[in-house]
Amino acid sequence: MLHVVKIGGKLIEDEFLLDTFLKNFHKLRGSKILIHGGGKYASILSKRLGLYPKIVKGRRITNMKTLEVLIMSYAGLLNKALVASLEKLGTSTLGLSGADGNLIQSIRRYVKSIDYGHVGDFNKESVNIKDLYSLIQLNYVPVFCAITHDAKGHLLNTNADTIASYIAISMKEIEEICLHYCFEKRGILRNLEDANSYYTKINFDNFYKFRIFYQGMIPKLENAFYALKKGVRKVNILHPSSLFCRRKDKTLLYL
Amino acid sequence: MLHVVKIGGKLIEDEFLLDTFLKNFHKLRGSKILIHGGGKYASILSKRLGLYPKIVKGRRITNMKTLEVLIMSYAGLLNKALVASLEKLGTSTLGLSGADGNLIQSIRRYVKSIDYGHVGDFNKESVNIKDLYSLIQLNYVPVFCAITHDAKGHLLNTNADTIASYIAISMKEIEEICLHYCFEKRGILRNLEDANSYYTKINFDNFYKFRIFYQGMIPKLENAFYALKKGVRKVNILHPSSLFCRRKDKTLLYL
Repeated sequence: MLHVVKIGGKLIEDEFLLDTFLKNFHKLRGSKILIHGGGKYASILSKRLGLYPKIVKGRRITNMKTLEVLIMSYAGLLNKALVASLEKLGTSTLGLSGADGNLIQSIRRYVKSIDYGHVGDFNKESVNIKDLYSLIQLNYVPVFCAITHDAKGHLLNTNADTIASYIAISMKEIEEICLHYCFEKRGILRNLEDANSYYTKINFDNFYKFRIFYQGMIPKLENAFYALKKGVRKVNILHPSSLFCRRKDKTLLYL
Repeated sequence: MLHVVKIGGKLIEDEFLLDTFLKNFHKLRGSKILIHGGGKYASILSKRLGLYPKIVKGRRITNMKTLEVLIMSYAGLLNKALVASLEKLGTSTLGLSGADGNLIQSIRRYVKSIDYGHVGDFNKESVNIKDLYSLIQLNYVPVFCAITHDAKGHLLNTNADTIASYIAISMKEIEEICLHYCFEKRGILRNLEDANSYYTKINFDNFYKFRIFYQGMIPKLENAFYALKKGVRKVNILHPSSLFCRRKDKTLLYL
């Protein structure tokens, strides 16, 4: 079993939650890959440097200065902090971007009406399965930040949920995959005011019919269901304290 | 033959020089490890963030805020830019800190009269030879920034010349080593005003007697001679255009 685990948002910003996650991730048996999003540090750094996000039609544009801040925050500060913490616990990790070893290659997003800037999208050959598996066979846990490259010398900002989903889909050729989207809540909530109101299961047809209910969770759920459709065995959305396959207090997705 | 190559200073800051270096490094035959120092970006970033270096008795102190800037600049921006550029050329690289895979473990500098802050020093067990060699055997070129860790969860700022020297010394157990300190000059200059006045050879006894002449180069030369004394086969100080063992326009060090 290969666990592909994505963490992001408030989980990364909260010291106690992150500590819970790291301890449970360390204990998780089997092969593992970790993918992390950003947390708020990139925004704080941007503001301190006098950079303000450029938003076009509600979408953030990654210009070169913003990309630099993301690389510094994600590939630098956050990635190495996670590596140092996991090494302390005894999990042997390699902190990587997609450029490292050409492990995740993306394509700069095609410009239709909006140029999103230095943003990478995937195709089915994006993940270098063979080389990634060689590192896992050496007992390393690859820890990916949300930066990839186009193999032409350019780094690209890439959505961490999508990286997790594509890694899971690609690696299923080699091992059975359990994909975990790990965050600060106990699952997808029916009622945002009630932390215990999580769905234990969501079925694809219901998601499709009632997607309006899953406030702010649509992109994550789309990535998650896409992975299931492409043959990933199990997809969970869960709190770090439930990061074990047998625990039932999580949202399990199914087709 | 394993080439251990260190780059730093103006070589990193000058686009043309860096490009020359990367092309020649890519062409260099045999196994390779790259270690990079910082360049001026960390200072620029520090100033933009309103951080000014704390100097005690002429020595820079690495407090937590400074360490964060170094991690962002070295492990983030610079390391990933080098990786993306080398991948473009076709050299398969892994951009690493010493924390990754616990490959380089250091010890926080002992406080005598001055506390240098988050600065790491080495001992002879610092380099994880076996695991580093496993990555090389997978045909990766490890690209190290000058950040290591203490294996207790703390990252440490570490001198890049010293990392290069210790990697060379440790890896000589496995392969014959050629250690290159690569920078913007053609070698160690007799006269700083004359770019062609480089020594073709410097002998340890002469270095020891006349060390006062090697302005600003003492720490680099000390690291270099230490490597020679510990059994590294060849140590050069050279310009990126001379990065081939047969080229003679460089300063060769000998005992």
